[in-house]
Amino acid sequence: MNFDPYFVRPRQKIDLRNWEPDDTHAWKGSDKAVTELADLTAKLESLQEQLYCESKHRLLVVLQGMDTSGKDGVIRKVFEGVNPQGVRVASFKVPTPIELAHDYLWRVHSQTPGKGEMVIFNRSHYEDVLAVRVHNLVPENVWKKRYNQINEFERLLVEEGTTVLKFYLHISRDEQKERLLERIETPEKNWKFNPGDLEERKLWPEYMAAYEDVLNRTSTEWAPWYLVPADKKWFRNVLISSVIVETLKGFDMKYPTPEEDLAPYAARLRAGE
Amino acid sequence: MNFDPYFVRPRQKIDLRNWEPDDTHAWKGSDKAVTELADLTAKLESLQEQLYCESKHRLLVVLQGMDTSGKDGVIRKVFEGVNPQGVRVASFKVPTPIELAHDYLWRVHSQTPGKGEMVIFNRSHYEDVLAVRVHNLVPENVWKKRYNQINEFERLLVEEGTTVLKFYLHISRDEQKERLLERIETPEKNWKFNPGDLEERKLWPEYMAAYEDVLNRTSTEWAPWYLVPADKKWFRNVLISSVIVETLKGFDMKYPTPEEDLAPYAARLRAGE
Repeated sequence: MNFDPYFVRPRQKIDLRNWEPDDTHAWKGSDKAVTELADLTAKLESLQEQLYCESKHRLLVVLQGMDTSGKDGVIRKVFEGVNPQGVRVASFKVPTPIELAHDYLWRVHSQTPGKGEMVIFNRSHYEDVLAVRVHNLVPENVWKKRYNQINEFERLLVEEGTTVLKFYLHISRDEQKERLLERIETPEKNWKFNPGDLEERKLWPEYMAAYEDVLNRTSTEWAPWYLVPADKKWFRNVLISSVIVETLKGFDMKYPTPEEDLAPYAARLRAGE
Repeated sequence: MNFDPYFVRPRQKIDLRNWEPDDTHAWKGSDKAVTELADLTAKLESLQEQLYCESKHRLLVVLQGMDTSGKDGVIRKVFEGVNPQGVRVASFKVPTPIELAHDYLWRVHSQTPGKGEMVIFNRSHYEDVLAVRVHNLVPENVWKKRYNQINEFERLLVEEGTTVLKFYLHISRDEQKERLLERIETPEKNWKFNPGDLEERKLWPEYMAAYEDVLNRTSTEWAPWYLVPADKKWFRNVLISSVIVETLKGFDMKYPTPEEDLAPYAARLRAGE
C-alpha cells in the first residue's frame, strides 16, 4: 500500500485535529486487508530470516500511543510468525530505582538492536517527553532539552548503522472509551484494565499537545515518524507491516557468501572425517 | 504423545549407545506428526498468552546438542506463532572478555525468565561442562565441581518459582555428516557452515562422554533432562512441543481477576469521563 500520506516529513507542522483516527485510506473494508496482512506476514517472516542470516543491518521499531491504542496488538499481529531468535521486544514501564539513577536514555540505549537483530520498543524514550511532561515529573527547562537530545541520540544510532522506524498509533478519545469498556466487561480482558487509565484519560488534551510536539520536533531525516490512524485495527496492522516490509526490502539483503571454497570440506566429510 | 520414555530419571544410568537417534516412537511416518505439531503450536500460542497475562509462572527451556542437532530449528518451528512479547531467546556463544571476568553462571543468571516470561536458552551453562571440558579450558578439578554447582543453581531457580525444562537433542554422527554437507552444498545455507565444525566433529567420542556425564549427573527431581532423538526433525519437534504444552497445561492458569469491582469504572466512562 502507499503509506506516504502517513509519513511525517521533517519540519512538517502537525495538528492532530486534522488527522482522522478512523481513516482507512482508499480501502472500503477489512476483507482485502486480511489477505494483504497474511501476505505481508509471510514476507516479513522471510525478510527477518534474511536479516538474521546476513547479520549486517539492525532494525529498531518504536511503538508509541495512548493507552489502548494497540501497541500490544501490533506486536502480536504484525510480528506473529517471526523467529523469536532475532526479534526482541523491549517494554519500557515505570522506571526502576536503578534506571532512575541514570539519565533517561541509559536504559533505552542498552536495549537497542545488534547486527541482524530486530528490536521492538513497546513505549520508549518518548515517554520522557510525554508522560513525564504531562505529569510534571521534571521541570519544563529539562524536558524541553530532550527533543534535541533524542534527535542526536537517534542520529548516533542511525549513523552507526541502525535503521529507526517510529510509529505513533493515533486513536480517538471515543475509541479509547470503547476499548476500556471492553476491558472492563470482558472477564478475560480484565487483567489489561488499570483504574489509573481513567486518570490518564482526563489528561487527553495535554497528551495530544505533547504528542504534537513529539511529531513536530522529532520527525527527522534519519528517524521519521509515521502517524498511524489506529481506530481500525486492521488498517493499523497493514500500514505498519507495509512500512516494515518495504524497509527490509530496501536493505537489498543477500545470503552471506563464504570467504573460502567449501568444496574441500565436503570432500573431507565424504572421505570419512 | 507419551514422552515418558524420553524423560531421564534422576540417578538413571544413561549409556548413549543404547539410545537410537532415529527413534520415532510408535510413529511410522511424519504425516500425522505434521498435523500434531500444528495442533500443538496453536495450543502453545494460547498457553503462552495465558502465561503472559497471568504473570505468575516463569518457564526456562534449555536446548543443548551437538552442532547441527537442531537447536535453531526447534526455536523456529516449535515457537513460531508465539507472541514475541513474553518469549525471549538467549544464545550463549563464546564468552566475551567481560563474561569471562565473572563466574560462568553470571551471564546465565542474568538471562533467566521473569514472571510471565518464557525464555529459551540456545546452548547454556552446560557448555561449561561440555565444550569447556572437551577442550580442557579449565582443569578437571574445576569442571568436576560444576555439576553440583549447576544442580544447586537450578534448585535456586526452581525453589524461587521457575520451571526448568532441559532438552538434549541426540543426533547420530552420520546424520551430522549429512547436515554439514547440506550446509556446504546449499548456497543459502553456507552462512551456517563453520570450518571449525569439522574440528569439533573429530571430538565426537569426547563430547558423547561429556553429554553422558551431564545426563547422569544433572537430571534432578527439580530440573530433569529429556533425551530427544533428533535425527528426524519432525519427531524432535513434536516431542519437545508436547513436553512444553503439557508443562504449561499443568500450571492450571487462570486469567487474573481484578481485586475490586470494575463496574463503577464502566459507569464513569459511560457518564462521559
